[in-house]
Amino acid sequence: MGMIGGGKDAFIGAVHRMSANLDGLIELSAGSFSSNPEKSLESGRALFLPSNRIYATYQEMLEKESQLPDSERIDFVSIVTPNYMHFDPAMMALNYGFHVVLDKPITLNSDQAWQLHEKVNQSGLLFCLTHTYSGYPMVKQARYMVANGELGKIRKIYVEYPQGWLSGVVENTGNKQADWRMDPSRSGKAGCMGDIGTHAAHLAEYISGLKISHICAQLNKVGEGRILDDDGAILLQFDQGASGILIASQVAAGEENALTIRVYGEKGGLEWKQMEPNSLIIKWLDKPLEILRTGGAGLSEVAKLHTRTPAGHPEGYLEAFANLYRNFALAIMNRMGTEKANPLLDYPGTEEGLRGMNFIDKVVESSDSQTKWISMQSKYSV
Amino acid sequence: MGMIGGGKDAFIGAVHRMSANLDGLIELSAGSFSSNPEKSLESGRALFLPSNRIYATYQEMLEKESQLPDSERIDFVSIVTPNYMHFDPAMMALNYGFHVVLDKPITLNSDQAWQLHEKVNQSGLLFCLTHTYSGYPMVKQARYMVANGELGKIRKIYVEYPQGWLSGVVENTGNKQADWRMDPSRSGKAGCMGDIGTHAAHLAEYISGLKISHICAQLNKVGEGRILDDDGAILLQFDQGASGILIASQVAAGEENALTIRVYGEKGGLEWKQMEPNSLIIKWLDKPLEILRTGGAGLSEVAKLHTRTPAGHPEGYLEAFANLYRNFALAIMNRMGTEKANPLLDYPGTEEGLRGMNFIDKVVESSDSQTKWISMQSKYSV
Amino acid sequence: MGMIGGGKDAFIGAVHRMSANLDGLIELSAGSFSSNPEKSLESGRALFLPSNRIYATYQEMLEKESQLPDSERIDFVSIVTPNYMHFDPAMMALNYGFHVVLDKPITLNSDQAWQLHEKVNQSGLLFCLTHTYSGYPMVKQARYMVANGELGKIRKIYVEYPQGWLSGVVENTGNKQADWRMDPSRSGKAGCMGDIGTHAAHLAEYISGLKISHICAQLNKVGEGRILDDDGAILLQFDQGASGILIASQVAAGEENALTIRVYGEKGGLEWKQMEPNSLIIKWLDKPLEILRTGGAGLSEVAKLHTRTPAGHPEGYLEAFANLYRNFALAIMNRMGTEKANPLLDYPGTEEGLRGMNFIDKVVESSDSQTKWISMQSKYSV
Amino acid sequence: MGMIGGGKDAFIGAVHRMSANLDGLIELSAGSFSSNPEKSLESGRALFLPSNRIYATYQEMLEKESQLPDSERIDFVSIVTPNYMHFDPAMMALNYGFHVVLDKPITLNSDQAWQLHEKVNQSGLLFCLTHTYSGYPMVKQARYMVANGELGKIRKIYVEYPQGWLSGVVENTGNKQADWRMDPSRSGKAGCMGDIGTHAAHLAEYISGLKISHICAQLNKVGEGRILDDDGAILLQFDQGASGILIASQVAAGEENALTIRVYGEKGGLEWKQMEPNSLIIKWLDKPLEILRTGGAGLSEVAKLHTRTPAGHPEGYLEAFANLYRNFALAIMNRMGTEKANPLLDYPGTEEGLRGMNFIDKVVESSDSQTKWISMQSKYSV
Repeated sequence: MGMIGGGKDAFIGAVHRMSANLDGLIELSAGSFSSNPEKSLESGRALFLPSNRIYATYQEMLEKESQLPDSERIDFVSIVTPNYMHFDPAMMALNYGFHVVLDKPITLNSDQAWQLHEKVNQSGLLFCLTHTYSGYPMVKQARYMVANGELGKIRKIYVEYPQGWLSGVVENTGNKQADWRMDPSRSGKAGCMGDIGTHAAHLAEYISGLKISHICAQLNKVGEGRILDDDGAILLQFDQGASGILIASQVAAGEENALTIRVYGEKGGLEWKQMEPNSLIIKWLDKPLEILRTGGAGLSEVAKLHTRTPAGHPEGYLEAFANLYRNFALAIMNRMGTEKANPLLDYPGTEEGLRGMNFIDKVVESSDSQTKWISMQSKYSV
Repeated sequence: MGMIGGGKDAFIGAVHRMSANLDGLIELSAGSFSSNPEKSLESGRALFLPSNRIYATYQEMLEKESQLPDSERIDFVSIVTPNYMHFDPAMMALNYGFHVVLDKPITLNSDQAWQLHEKVNQSGLLFCLTHTYSGYPMVKQARYMVANGELGKIRKIYVEYPQGWLSGVVENTGNKQADWRMDPSRSGKAGCMGDIGTHAAHLAEYISGLKISHICAQLNKVGEGRILDDDGAILLQFDQGASGILIASQVAAGEENALTIRVYGEKGGLEWKQMEPNSLIIKWLDKPLEILRTGGAGLSEVAKLHTRTPAGHPEGYLEAFANLYRNFALAIMNRMGTEKANPLLDYPGTEEGLRGMNFIDKVVESSDSQTKWISMQSKYSV
Repeated sequence: MGMIGGGKDAFIGAVHRMSANLDGLIELSAGSFSSNPEKSLESGRALFLPSNRIYATYQEMLEKESQLPDSERIDFVSIVTPNYMHFDPAMMALNYGFHVVLDKPITLNSDQAWQLHEKVNQSGLLFCLTHTYSGYPMVKQARYMVANGELGKIRKIYVEYPQGWLSGVVENTGNKQADWRMDPSRSGKAGCMGDIGTHAAHLAEYISGLKISHICAQLNKVGEGRILDDDGAILLQFDQGASGILIASQVAAGEENALTIRVYGEKGGLEWKQMEPNSLIIKWLDKPLEILRTGGAGLSEVAKLHTRTPAGHPEGYLEAFANLYRNFALAIMNRMGTEKANPLLDYPGTEEGLRGMNFIDKVVESSDSQTKWISMQSKYSV
Repeated sequence: MGMIGGGKDAFIGAVHRMSANLDGLIELSAGSFSSNPEKSLESGRALFLPSNRIYATYQEMLEKESQLPDSERIDFVSIVTPNYMHFDPAMMALNYGFHVVLDKPITLNSDQAWQLHEKVNQSGLLFCLTHTYSGYPMVKQARYMVANGELGKIRKIYVEYPQGWLSGVVENTGNKQADWRMDPSRSGKAGCMGDIGTHAAHLAEYISGLKISHICAQLNKVGEGRILDDDGAILLQFDQGASGILIASQVAAGEENALTIRVYGEKGGLEWKQMEPNSLIIKWLDKPLEILRTGGAGLSEVAKLHTRTPAGHPEGYLEAFANLYRNFALAIMNRMGTEKANPLLDYPGTEEGLRGMNFIDKVVESSDSQTKWISMQSKYSV
């Protein structure tokens, strides 16, 4: 693996590396960790990389790595830069024949996403978009149970993602994470809805197997002087008649990272909370509530395949993230002929990326509109 | 106390009686428990009432009781009939000079509510609308903390009230509670939103001290053949710039009575769940989360005044309900000169009733409209 | 009902009255609320009793009430005085032919308990010992499931009752509840173990249907200068081979009233927490955990018979307490011929009182002994 | 790192590898994964090791690795075999100059532990005993708060470790984990108490900073035909006057891995549950309960140093385990001169190993004895 971005002090770069490390399938072999060559070098050394695999620019890395023999060169790149720096390195990596892991949202705008989607399809290369939360074993279990009809026809979906870390206008006081996220030129046309609303929307569609068809959104700019939304709520209509709501906020003071989803069908409902990820609560209409537990009794094959430790040995965010990397690595190994394919070992790709960009477009459009319901239909809604 | 409605097998009548009994301040002395005189008699006897205080009709009760000497006759009536039977007995009771306790929503429509409101104001009689949930001590505490500025300026309010008991079309299979609630002629123009949405709206305004100013609602009729909503969600705007959402559903299969509210200000957020009512969670932006507990340390005077048992001896729904009755009884005793007034011992009245009817009107209007935002302003929005 | 003790400011007297009031079956008609006649009068008036039913002494009350006609006089007395004031009024009440409700522990010592037990048996009068916690519907459910073999043979019982209110030596600073409880002449030979350890022991035996056969106890006097235990732990052996532990503490700083029990059999375990009393957690060996809920699906008849409100309308301590009073009142009405007997409507009696006194004796003996295991066998272990 | 044991299908070997991988500081470079050379080879290949670093025996590995140049050879060995295979490879590794990571309990008996302890001290080599649970950041925080006097003088410690996986006699039906653990020749003189009781005892001492001084134990052999304990409970006395209990069970049917500790001082208590490891509950005597959260506000430096992700991104068992490996790797790097020492980055060593073996000896002695209290004093109680 070669990494683009993620130098020292970058939050998400370290998360990607730990997650890639966990299963011993992936080795960090090269990197261009910063647009500042010195910082890149320093970061690479701290990661025990040999100097000749630490590059001053991603262009240099892609070019030089592509010239190394197959047995030495990196197999894929992981791009962990801010949104505005997603498209160019991803496209270049694909052009050089590297598979790509990319953080969400996939690009700065829908048009870039579309180009990337087409490029991936044409090239036949592998592409993983890190919608981390769908990597949790109990999310897999939830999806399985819905697909299996255990809840009956789905009627209601409530998904919410409250955080509180942007309650103060911390981008004005040196918080780098906030700084680029609240800047449209680096973040895109949405703030909170792009950053975490897309996670919530993906999770709702992933678990329910339904697609959001219409929305009615209210975005807010609560922090003084903000250009992008830091908060919002959306009425949702899904195909096949379900409805629901989506909440995303980064000004819910005191909340950590409280992504939560509830899905109700005719026979019962399920509830999953990212902050207590090893429990999946099933509330039945006519029998006692059940709690399914990571590693515990009564789980589907797909949940088991994404679990590393026995019940009661809690798994967390890094393990969920590692499931994406593990599945992506196995897909590459399958391409190489060293692993059998297993459709249960899934990971999000450019379709999910496109849907996320379309979600951003439509939510902003809806919030700005006096029309109540906005259709999600567009050329990007694959 | 004389009771109108609430014969054997009626859910809410028994709840009113137990709540009225609890503190030994109120005695059930008379009743007209059913429109069926025999059933009324049977019910009254089961409640140990003497035969001469069990009446065949509420008209008879009000007339005869009003002729009894002051020391014998009832001081107030408690009306626990379905919505369409609220207005007439309430108005007649006021005309006979009785104070009134009435279940919510206050009447079948806003016009009736307005007449009742005016009548109460003109008569100077006391009136209590049983929005039970604002009787909980931790709700009082939450309201106190917001008013006291402890969370800073309020920004977000999420209130939700999911139930699952109407997941099946049980009104077709003999469920009497469902039967009248899903019938517009007996329930009014809203189903779920009138029955429990009004509780949620009242709770949000009660705790936050803010008023809902604009709404954008989606009501659903999920159960096949239903004329009234059994589910809905609303985007909310409050005065003073806060925003939020309100969810109410009676088809969230597997949910019991999960009224929950979260209120976030600049400095932190609070969370209260009716199903775990003795904990009030305070999530601070920059210090550890705290949990305030009924009867525990750090509580305001108003919370203490609504608590009966020491910390760790859980109080519940009946105690919250009893707080309304206790406060109402003390207000009557104050009128009689036997108790001092205490503004902390509050209970909802016709203003809250009017606001509830206006909420129902506007929510139905919004759901039927293609206009995104509907103002809550009306002649009823006192 | 006539009350002995429980004047103004007494905690448990008010609890008894509210619990007795709740269901409208019992009326407080007389009382001797304090050894101080003026205070008794003042208390009785605050409770709306007529002056001629407020007595200066319990002796006077029992004598005079016994001379009233059947239709006027009290049916039973409720004695809510400190332990040292249990025996004399209870015995006198029985002698005058009144049924008796008595707070636990039953008496100051085992010998008194034995006399009371014999007297009750000889007189044929009804007697209720208020082990409140066995009145909770989910405790009834737990007992039912164990008896029904749903957990298989019982192997382990962990019962614990931590409180923190005696962490400081508050009996020296005016806390009346602490004052008599830490005084052997008024409390008996145990402090914490008598006050709350007996509740824990009763709950363990009530749910499991097993009897404690041997114990190994360590009592502690943590608060400086205390003569009685304020803390302790006990290794337990039950008949039929189960084992476990019992913890009781009043110096577990920060704990409220955290009575909790876990019972494990061959097929699974159950867990019940008094502070969240409406959930009964069932942990199965080989299938997902279930949570049974007061008023919810899948409950036994006995649980339903002790429930007043639908699922999600939380019941609490007063409702559990009221179940004892309700069952006792129905037993009296059965004696009068106005109610059918129902063995599911149980309440603790003198046998449980004797077992509690024997528990106190043996725990103190064990703690003082160097012998490891002490048998619970004695003349009092009925 | 070279690994001894932990071939395919071994639970704890994979845990060690993932934990060692996580931070990118440690590389698995060699291994002898099984006493069966073919299985060792197969396991090593599955882990992408070159054939010349996969060894048929640990003796071969230690010998050959010791002959490699410094820059190539392993720095330390990780021994993840059953208890009876701890001493010989550990001693041999030390003799060859390798640092050692060893699973707990440290050896099969106290005498071996003592020899290892002396050897480590004499050699100056580094040694880490994997008491995983003290690697959790909230455990570090708990230890810090106690040491800092925030709870006042410690009075009570309740530690419990219930599991249910040995409820059935699964060693008779092919469960390999159960098979060796229930065999004294491979497990040692205790079963459950050696396997998980030692974890509980270590955690109690680690957090409280106190030492267990006296015990009174009851061990049980619940599963039919078992020679070793599968369950037990212990009354504890600590130095400096605290007391408590320790529960460990592997027949608590339905329990997963529910290690929980509560520590109470004069001013308040703390509670930590391994299955919800990111919350540390602080119950104050006279102010509201607080919950400290991994990555959240109000934490000590030592907690922060053992945390990888922001608050609300749950960390789990592997991260706790990885903290031991990370700290051990940094200690080795400090020895090499490439890292500064930081006393906050601790890990358990042979002293904790010796204390664990002494705990096993004394618990078995106490359970077999009719004497109530057994002193923990011995030549091994360092």
